[in-house]
Amino acid sequence: MTGTQRILIAQGGGPTAVINQSLVGAVLAARGLPQVERIVGARHGVRGIVNEDFVDLMQETTAHLERVAATPASALGSTRDKPDLKYCQNILEVLKAHQIGHFFYIGGNDSSDTVRIVVEEAKKAGHALAAVHIPKTIDNDLMGNDHTPGFPSAARFVMQAFAGANLDNAALPGVYVAVVMGRHAGFLTAAAALARTQPDDGPHLVYLPERVFEIDRFLADVKSVHAKHGRCVVAVSEGIHDASGDPIASKLATNVERDAHGNVQLSGTGALADLLCDEIKAKLGIKRVRGDTFGYLQRSFLGCVSDVDAREAREVGERAVQFALRQGQVGSVAIRRVGDYAVNYVLQPLEAVAARTRVMDDAFINAAGNDVTPAFRDYLRPLLGSDLPQAHRLRGAAVEKVLKR
Amino acid sequence: MTGTQRILIAQGGGPTAVINQSLVGAVLAARGLPQVERIVGARHGVRGIVNEDFVDLMQETTAHLERVAATPASALGSTRDKPDLKYCQNILEVLKAHQIGHFFYIGGNDSSDTVRIVVEEAKKAGHALAAVHIPKTIDNDLMGNDHTPGFPSAARFVMQAFAGANLDNAALPGVYVAVVMGRHAGFLTAAAALARTQPDDGPHLVYLPERVFEIDRFLADVKSVHAKHGRCVVAVSEGIHDASGDPIASKLATNVERDAHGNVQLSGTGALADLLCDEIKAKLGIKRVRGDTFGYLQRSFLGCVSDVDAREAREVGERAVQFALRQGQVGSVAIRRVGDYAVNYVLQPLEAVAARTRVMDDAFINAAGNDVTPAFRDYLRPLLGSDLPQAHRLRGAAVEKVLKR
Repeated sequence: MTGTQRILIAQGGGPTAVINQSLVGAVLAARGLPQVERIVGARHGVRGIVNEDFVDLMQETTAHLERVAATPASALGSTRDKPDLKYCQNILEVLKAHQIGHFFYIGGNDSSDTVRIVVEEAKKAGHALAAVHIPKTIDNDLMGNDHTPGFPSAARFVMQAFAGANLDNAALPGVYVAVVMGRHAGFLTAAAALARTQPDDGPHLVYLPERVFEIDRFLADVKSVHAKHGRCVVAVSEGIHDASGDPIASKLATNVERDAHGNVQLSGTGALADLLCDEIKAKLGIKRVRGDTFGYLQRSFLGCVSDVDAREAREVGERAVQFALRQGQVGSVAIRRVGDYAVNYVLQPLEAVAARTRVMDDAFINAAGNDVTPAFRDYLRPLLGSDLPQAHRLRGAAVEKVLKR
Repeated sequence: MTGTQRILIAQGGGPTAVINQSLVGAVLAARGLPQVERIVGARHGVRGIVNEDFVDLMQETTAHLERVAATPASALGSTRDKPDLKYCQNILEVLKAHQIGHFFYIGGNDSSDTVRIVVEEAKKAGHALAAVHIPKTIDNDLMGNDHTPGFPSAARFVMQAFAGANLDNAALPGVYVAVVMGRHAGFLTAAAALARTQPDDGPHLVYLPERVFEIDRFLADVKSVHAKHGRCVVAVSEGIHDASGDPIASKLATNVERDAHGNVQLSGTGALADLLCDEIKAKLGIKRVRGDTFGYLQRSFLGCVSDVDAREAREVGERAVQFALRQGQVGSVAIRRVGDYAVNYVLQPLEAVAARTRVMDDAFINAAGNDVTPAFRDYLRPLLGSDLPQAHRLRGAAVEKVLKR
């Protein structure tokens, strides 16, 4: 006896290291239900839906799905399309044609907004639809979530990158500036602070989009750290902006590129790091100044995953299917911290998440606005997962000089 | 009964993921010899020697040394100083004052040249000195070596980065250009090719400093790949240059910075990737074009190590001590491949390595000059180590369209 229910699942927005865990979590949970007749995946998110570009997820073997789950970046493909009402009506038309009664969209706040509109249109059209938004974003900027799947693995990458960059900078002293993703929320940049082990370890300065960035203040900070340690490691969010809200990155860009959401392109260019390095060289007269932009590596690097993140990403996919297929509910799955460290999953109204942005609590940012607080480190530490590599330096007992006593 | 022999060890040039394995390999081997009275490490390479900035490596615990060995970047600190004759004479003066009879310098070809000059000066001065150069460089450009410690781990990072970037680019199609370190030798950039699993996986194009880079040819290549796959992933060496040998990077740099060796600064700036992306956008009219520069992550990232590399880096340190202290020899330790896969270590004359640069064999580069050959992949594969993460994609059986049949 086969079931009668048909399920559609898709992935939207930027890839993460664990977004396929959520896909596989949902698919395997649904395949275990006798009422499920068909599970299709849309290629490249909502664009694949309107184009009816579907793959049959019933035909994937379980062993292979497990391997896909452990692979970073959206296995179904993604899209930057931000559907308007007409687009959502087209989505609904396809859902009806394919007799889809359950729709799961894995993505960020824009994706949850799409789910919200499609659900509204389905109600108006009298089409029974249980749709659930499954959270993911390395930016950690979804309302009502303690944290979002994808962020912990990206944070782990940033931490490991800064731990290494700090050692490199200690070996060959100078100023090192690295730009980290995060347009409005500084969580990922703040993760750099977890790289510190010794009191003089970098990053010595951390600049977040939650605070106004003043170039003179920045230069004074760098000068002060460099005078104290003979070197300086700086973590900067790509989203830093001046008092009027203009991105520092756009101040020098000759060809500003904007996406479908009207946002200036911040990633995929090393311009911001280069600008800040040029300022340091010119104004502080420090010679060895180097800038890196972590770029796409921080969200897609193969082989840098927090096991806590992988497990939770799997669970939000499974819980989404439980909410929709067992309970007929509509909403957005959210992670709530219920212990130190334990989590629970709840279903939020889509309106609570859709098109809204969470930023860092004031309690996570120091008074000077150039570092995080111990509260942030306590918040992040359990998310980074097990077997975190650690940096160790020589204790280095000094030997007495002979010639230059 | 204590010994009478005093040993000095230092690290030079750019850090690697396993350079501390060589340090600890040498230190532990020397500590096991009864004739050794003292082992000192110079902070920041040759600069630490002339400044008598030494640490006592007899006082480090073995357990701690093992943890330092597993930490990337030069634990003793490094330097970009390139000693001339006078500088080398100052080094010798310090060696004599501290009664150093054995000198080990872990570094690239410039470091081996320093060892060569110091040994010559010691001979002239009648100071008995057994000095051995211990190889390291992520560039893999030392003569007489099958490969150099540090390269395999950096190659593994590049491979993992491109495997992830390829998945990201498949999820959100466009053109992706990533710039990899390597001024004259393209080995590290070429490692990107090992990221491919499926026939249409990127990097689709690989540009090496061993070939002249022509921007028109490059654009035609990108256009062709993009037309075929709807996307294109490109690996570019920072050292690409035009027919006259001028770095492509310096063609746009406003403030060209040169190091003590007279080389233009290539790392620590995203300029080359941005230039290439601008060209693609302007000339090919492709909208989604993104550039990354792997920067310092590829040589210092905490937690990306080839176990083969770690083991060999440890061994070259141990062999150096055996050559110098058991056999009184002078030279440069080299790795020779003697099987598939097995290696042996030999001692080369310093002149064979000093200030010379190995580049990729013609047999490793395809005729078009925009990819590697199977021979290169066979060469590199065993070096990447065990437990290499792998990328898996959905098999994706298509579902029949309903509306748009």
